[in-house]
Amino acid sequence: MFESAELGHREDKETFVAEVPKLRESLLDAQFDLAQVKRFPLIVLIGGVDGGGKSEIVNLLNAWMDPRHIQTHGLEEPNDEDRQRPHMWRWWRQLPPKGTTGLFNGSWYTFPILQRAHRKTKEVHLEQSLSRIQRFERMLLDEGALLIKFWMHLSKDAQKKRLKKLEADPLTRWRVTDQDWEHFEMYDRFRKISERSLQVTSTADAPWTIVEATDFRYQALTVGRHLLEAMRKRLDGLPEQLTILVPPLPPRLDSVNVFQTLDLTQHTAKPDYEVELERLQGRLNLLTRHKTFKKRSMVIAFEGSDAAGKGGAIRRVTGALDARIYRIIPIAAPTDEEKAQPYLWRFWRHMPGAGRMAIFDRSWYGRVLVERVEGYCAEADWIRAYSEINDFEEQMNRNGTLVCKFWLSISPEEQLKRFEARKETAYKRFKITEDDWRNREKWDAYEQAVCDMVDRTSTASAPWTLVESEDKNFGRIKVLKTLVDRLEREL
Amino acid sequence: MFESAELGHREDKETFVAEVPKLRESLLDAQFDLAQVKRFPLIVLIGGVDGGGKSEIVNLLNAWMDPRHIQTHGLEEPNDEDRQRPHMWRWWRQLPPKGTTGLFNGSWYTFPILQRAHRKTKEVHLEQSLSRIQRFERMLLDEGALLIKFWMHLSKDAQKKRLKKLEADPLTRWRVTDQDWEHFEMYDRFRKISERSLQVTSTADAPWTIVEATDFRYQALTVGRHLLEAMRKRLDGLPEQLTILVPPLPPRLDSVNVFQTLDLTQHTAKPDYEVELERLQGRLNLLTRHKTFKKRSMVIAFEGSDAAGKGGAIRRVTGALDARIYRIIPIAAPTDEEKAQPYLWRFWRHMPGAGRMAIFDRSWYGRVLVERVEGYCAEADWIRAYSEINDFEEQMNRNGTLVCKFWLSISPEEQLKRFEARKETAYKRFKITEDDWRNREKWDAYEQAVCDMVDRTSTASAPWTLVESEDKNFGRIKVLKTLVDRLEREL
Repeated sequence: MFESAELGHREDKETFVAEVPKLRESLLDAQFDLAQVKRFPLIVLIGGVDGGGKSEIVNLLNAWMDPRHIQTHGLEEPNDEDRQRPHMWRWWRQLPPKGTTGLFNGSWYTFPILQRAHRKTKEVHLEQSLSRIQRFERMLLDEGALLIKFWMHLSKDAQKKRLKKLEADPLTRWRVTDQDWEHFEMYDRFRKISERSLQVTSTADAPWTIVEATDFRYQALTVGRHLLEAMRKRLDGLPEQLTILVPPLPPRLDSVNVFQTLDLTQHTAKPDYEVELERLQGRLNLLTRHKTFKKRSMVIAFEGSDAAGKGGAIRRVTGALDARIYRIIPIAAPTDEEKAQPYLWRFWRHMPGAGRMAIFDRSWYGRVLVERVEGYCAEADWIRAYSEINDFEEQMNRNGTLVCKFWLSISPEEQLKRFEARKETAYKRFKITEDDWRNREKWDAYEQAVCDMVDRTSTASAPWTLVESEDKNFGRIKVLKTLVDRLEREL
Repeated sequence: MFESAELGHREDKETFVAEVPKLRESLLDAQFDLAQVKRFPLIVLIGGVDGGGKSEIVNLLNAWMDPRHIQTHGLEEPNDEDRQRPHMWRWWRQLPPKGTTGLFNGSWYTFPILQRAHRKTKEVHLEQSLSRIQRFERMLLDEGALLIKFWMHLSKDAQKKRLKKLEADPLTRWRVTDQDWEHFEMYDRFRKISERSLQVTSTADAPWTIVEATDFRYQALTVGRHLLEAMRKRLDGLPEQLTILVPPLPPRLDSVNVFQTLDLTQHTAKPDYEVELERLQGRLNLLTRHKTFKKRSMVIAFEGSDAAGKGGAIRRVTGALDARIYRIIPIAAPTDEEKAQPYLWRFWRHMPGAGRMAIFDRSWYGRVLVERVEGYCAEADWIRAYSEINDFEEQMNRNGTLVCKFWLSISPEEQLKRFEARKETAYKRFKITEDDWRNREKWDAYEQAVCDMVDRTSTASAPWTLVESEDKNFGRIKVLKTLVDRLEREL
């Protein structure tokens, strides 16, 4: 696939000088429009061989465009916050908000390719990385990002010449490192691995553009023109709302569902409850002080109908823990910084470090529950959420982050009773809102959504636990027991 | 000052059992009100001697209150992101947003006290830290935070007993470390240093509460009651807008001001400009690749009237740099996450790491310029901003972060000319807004604000550079030259 980029493409100075002012003007205009509509981010990846002028192109784009709306990211070794979290965390942190541009000199491709080239990883790891990258980019595209990927290419001869030339000039000598020559020795290997990587990640909406890097004018104009064209096409053609048609979920032909496996009459008598609670809390406390847990982490998601007892269950969990190791994240309306990012961004940002626990009071499952039922997002958005969520949890799992998910289940009758009881109590913090009453009317729709959610997102590494919570004591014990069992199995 | 906390305070079980349910109820109510009004954050520091039950109190507060609205912070060694930035950065990162509670088990006091106790720092360093802490807390209080500080105290005998008791129990033995005994050996020294620290940082609106830690019931009730009282007093007594009276700035008796030192007729001819530009850009590039700079960092603030040429000047600076080392931060309206924090938070969050540069296109000086002139904030707010800003910049300076500040100056006539020219050009991105015309009418008020700003915030380590920008070329060269000179002097 590199053939066309080894033909000695050149651009003469005259054309270049004539075209650049117009090109810059148009790029600035496009960037201005992007900042005005703020409907999507522009993400530009600059990859390629050493000596292929990646930094020069990145610097040039900053000079041509308005650098105030560009965030440029170089490639650094992951720092200690990165290392404790899933691989993609550092990239989630760097995603540009809608309306702005993220320019990546080296990207999520770099380490997988380098590590494979240096034989630090096996072929299967490269393939796993590429597969993860594909899903990540799919998510970005579905979220509306304009993703443009450039690969700067030099033939083996051309690379050698380039490195020698840089070395010969005292002003540029510092830029050629031993590592560059070391990489050059591996040229063929690099090429093969890069080719494979580019091939499987070139999709219709985010193809790689391979740019021959022997002539800087040619390279610069190719990048500039393509960028402009892609931005213009998206800006001019963008409808208010992207309409994506997806196949619907399969219909359910009978009313047999996971809820029927639940026996809501189960209960735990108070004396038993108190003994069990203390035993399990003690056990949980010890487990979180286990030396293996100091290298792992845990993410717990609580979902359930209103008044199902999420808050009470969470307090029984945190009651067992040292307050320094956990963080509770109550999920409310997203902030404007969160709205300017892909849906899962506001959960990624709370990813716990080593030895820590993040407890979500409501979670990313809002997408396939309330947002689905209330129509807050398009059908295509919540349908794709199932796979995005599985991917999210799988990445945590690979990182050694244990994922536990609870659905607290009560009957509509019990919910009504709890609502009425809340109305009675003086504590204003238990005020029942209009929403709560309205949600009750959609009980069946919610039940359906919960069944679909469990069917599609209960995985071996991140299983759902349905908790019979009609009796609060029974529910709380089940939650604690599930956490303790999980930790005992994994540590 | 510890005398009253060595008297053997106890609370009997009966009182405790009777009071706790009411106390919890009231604390939850207060917390609910806090979350509703969202007008201030609650910041609780728990400090004190080893074995003084700090963790137990923190855990208890999490159990008594609603842990979903509490962020608990333990004390960890600074990580590599922290280490590259001023001391207080890690605490700025952890500040709770308005409406929520930040619970600090160990705080900004811990390291200064420990380091001094271990003789890793001199007395002068402790005093500097305490002075920095006072200014930080002053800022928090002025920003409306409710700051409550508890110090858990044990007499020497009581501490020894406590440690021995913990060691004797197999369940708590793990909690007593060699370090605890080592600290115990230094009890008297610790006590002296702590006393000094508490003394100078006990202010009327954020005094330390010293709590005897021999009896946990006494300790818990003291903390709980005091917390409740302080929250209630603030919640019930809080006016919509705090009115603080501050003395006005001294009047200016004549029209002699710093602008008169500027000769706006200075200009640089195009051929000279091009030679100088290239020379200075080359020099700047080399300086940022200097090995010393890799351990330092730089913050540049650009201010100036509309159309004074900030954008153009910034582009001439970034044109010299590798795009990976700088970040431009255009200052627009704060996001809602930023509005929930103290004013300077949104600048602290962009603090550059080692070898990096942060370029602010408009800056924290907005507080004493546009916000002052347009009345967007209270007089007390912009008047206190001068000292907060000096403190902010001083902290960068101590960290080795170079601070450069530019005011780009043009005459009203030149501004008008540029406005007219912009109206002519087709580029919509240069649209002149109503605001721009309106600001012109306040030229004198702005000039006054700029003079006050320069008088009050131009310091040896963070001087203002007034840039005659009537001639764009002259201005750009002056900016570059200032940066180059500064770096040459410092590296």
